[in-house]
Amino acid sequence: MSGRLIGRLLGIGVGPGDPELMTLKATRALAAADLVVHFAKTGCVSQARTIAAGHLKAGTPELPLFYPITSERPRNGSVYRDAMREFYDHAAILLAAQLDAGRAVAVICEGDPLFYGSYMHLHVRLAPLYPTQVIAGVTGMSGCWSAAGTPIAQGDDVLMVLPATLPEGELERRLTDADAAVVMKLGRHLPKIRRVLARVGRLERAIYVERGSSEAAVMLRLADKADDEAPYFAIVLMPGWERRT
Amino acid sequence: MSGRLIGRLLGIGVGPGDPELMTLKATRALAAADLVVHFAKTGCVSQARTIAAGHLKAGTPELPLFYPITSERPRNGSVYRDAMREFYDHAAILLAAQLDAGRAVAVICEGDPLFYGSYMHLHVRLAPLYPTQVIAGVTGMSGCWSAAGTPIAQGDDVLMVLPATLPEGELERRLTDADAAVVMKLGRHLPKIRRVLARVGRLERAIYVERGSSEAAVMLRLADKADDEAPYFAIVLMPGWERRT
Repeated sequence: MSGRLIGRLLGIGVGPGDPELMTLKATRALAAADLVVHFAKTGCVSQARTIAAGHLKAGTPELPLFYPITSERPRNGSVYRDAMREFYDHAAILLAAQLDAGRAVAVICEGDPLFYGSYMHLHVRLAPLYPTQVIAGVTGMSGCWSAAGTPIAQGDDVLMVLPATLPEGELERRLTDADAAVVMKLGRHLPKIRRVLARVGRLERAIYVERGSSEAAVMLRLADKADDEAPYFAIVLMPGWERRT
Repeated sequence: MSGRLIGRLLGIGVGPGDPELMTLKATRALAAADLVVHFAKTGCVSQARTIAAGHLKAGTPELPLFYPITSERPRNGSVYRDAMREFYDHAAILLAAQLDAGRAVAVICEGDPLFYGSYMHLHVRLAPLYPTQVIAGVTGMSGCWSAAGTPIAQGDDVLMVLPATLPEGELERRLTDADAAVVMKLGRHLPKIRRVLARVGRLERAIYVERGSSEAAVMLRLADKADDEAPYFAIVLMPGWERRT
């Protein structure tokens, strides 16, 4: 038996934005962490950090990880891919040093850690090597349909989560085949999504949601949205279920 | 102005099973509720009630709503549909009387209230008439992939949530077209799902999860599961993402 300490890695979901939508487990894990890690754009405060602020113990060391690329580069390009791989490799090395020193390292994540989040890039590198626990969180999409009061799916509905970045024809094919859908990463693709939903006869009940879990939330029927402006993180809900019983 | 009190309806998600995965908002709303409502099978304690037990204020009145049909009847049959409609209509009348008396009526729900849950049947009946708030919860599927430590979707992945009850050909068509999937309501459909995943080349990484958020959780590669037995609420995760960066 070696006397070497082994730390543990925690992937902590802090929910969609409202700090009250953090779980009890997340707040307790944060209070016990030796190091709190968060991702952010260079020059910005991490959104997860803002959500969790009230539950960080004073004096707990923090390690912000700044994404290397802030401009909107083509995500499939090899420059982007190489820079991101290097970034995650380097971050994993930093965290491994802390874990080797026996520390409890908490990576805080908006929404749920394993659902479209940056944490999973660290998870695949470190979870095979260190004791790891993932604490599920309320997803951004749950925050949105709850704020909008829109039942999203029921019974045997097939629900699809898909990015607005897909080609128009593919979006049409997929949305025709879904009972319910959440269209993410809206941004400049809003007009395309509106056209597709109109063509497949699902525009009437579709809901546009912007900053779903904040005080400044914008929610309206997509059909009633007069302009074509949408932030990157806005989403469209295509509810699958109407009152059937 | 009438002096009539108006109550408020709360749909409260209590998460996937571990009481620690309840949100702060859910626990506070429960503590302030005048009446706590939960759904259960006749003769059973509501699962949501069990999860929330530690956060119910002593002495708060409760109203259990027992589903009228416990046997496995065909869900599309008109007998089933009529019985369920009558059940929800009657439940809504009971709740309306409490809301008219000015009470804060909290309906507690496993997982997230508007994601495949019974609460939404009350929501569509009452939310147009009374001030209503829905408190998002951690979904059962988030609980499962977190417990299994399985990143489910990343980047531009298309994620599908679908019931194992679909015909085999349709399941094959849909799973071929998905980057990631969550197959719910496994039960006696397990062998069919195993066959389909093998045919579409996705069996290797698929994970079988039973009681994902409990101490008695069962998690293993579906390919390693030796038998064909699965409870109704078991799920299969088809992860969409491998280490790409």
